[in-house]
Amino acid sequence: MEKLSFVKNGVLRLPPGFRFHPTDEELVVQYLRRKVLACPLPASIIPEVDVCKADPWDLPGDLEQERYFFSTREAKYPNTNRSNRATISGYWKATGIDKQIVTSRSNQAVGMKKTLVFYRGKAPNGCRTDWIMHEYRVVSTETAACNAPPNKKNQTQVNCHITLLLSLCLYVLVKAKSLILY
Amino acid sequence: MEKLSFVKNGVLRLPPGFRFHPTDEELVVQYLRRKVLACPLPASIIPEVDVCKADPWDLPGDLEQERYFFSTREAKYPNTNRSNRATISGYWKATGIDKQIVTSRSNQAVGMKKTLVFYRGKAPNGCRTDWIMHEYRVVSTETAACNAPPNKKNQTQVNCHITLLLSLCLYVLVKAKSLILY
Repeated sequence: MEKLSFVKNGVLRLPPGFRFHPTDEELVVQYLRRKVLACPLPASIIPEVDVCKADPWDLPGDLEQERYFFSTREAKYPNTNRSNRATISGYWKATGIDKQIVTSRSNQAVGMKKTLVFYRGKAPNGCRTDWIMHEYRVVSTETAACNAPPNKKNQTQVNCHITLLLSLCLYVLVKAKSLILY
Repeated sequence: MEKLSFVKNGVLRLPPGFRFHPTDEELVVQYLRRKVLACPLPASIIPEVDVCKADPWDLPGDLEQERYFFSTREAKYPNTNRSNRATISGYWKATGIDKQIVTSRSNQAVGMKKTLVFYRGKAPNGCRTDWIMHEYRVVSTETAACNAPPNKKNQTQVNCHITLLLSLCLYVLVKAKSLILY
């Protein structure tokens, strides 16, 4: 897929009302899975940021908008799947049940979505805040089709760093505003 | 403003994840107010449809997406402000309090937003459905700045049809899915 030039110097050149507002499926299939497989992305819209290096209000971007980041999940202890999501002023804590992301056409599972809530203070006695983050991860790269032309270098990268890459997640940061009924 | 060619033959040519997802302010200032003033629109994305000529499920567009229409509000009786929102199988009924739309920069009131719910059957005994429509109207065209070059024809049109044009509304049709908490 050709990389389009809608984004220049970090500024979107779209008519009013048009913006990046992807579905879960688009985030996983078009952005996260491509990133994991080192395939070209359709647009350079999602920066790589260590989401736990800063508190949510200090992460880059417009606080009034949804913000998207690629970030590597860091294991809390070696040989475990638990993640270390502590920041400077608090910690991210998972809430609810992970949601499976499936493709709308073939109902194929492509990713998982976990919702995290930010707590100020030290676990487990932190104070819940309005900061919410959705964490997307790919479930398998074996069946992932990449439209990029065959490229030995890319393929080698994938093989060598598969474990590291699978810990790469896509995060959507939002500040909860109010109860929305529809 | 130059008309951009992101939409061709009704198909958006944007990278995955980019779509028309305007704010209330953008809808009123960039689309509805310009339409009322016969100014060029930034994109030809909103069709003119009589939203009460058909039931919501028969209106054009993707049922899974938000749909946008320009439509003229029809008075129920002469010399009243009440609107006739009856369709073939039911009617649209206002719910809640109208919301004032203000500009984010100067906090200037530019429009009003009314939420309508679709009921099947005859009023007042219809059965409430999951179909929701937001109706936007401009509050004043006197202070409306239009970037279009001066054009006598346009100006005459505005003057002659001001009453008719102010009854022009912008509608956003959605099918409520579930309770969203953030």
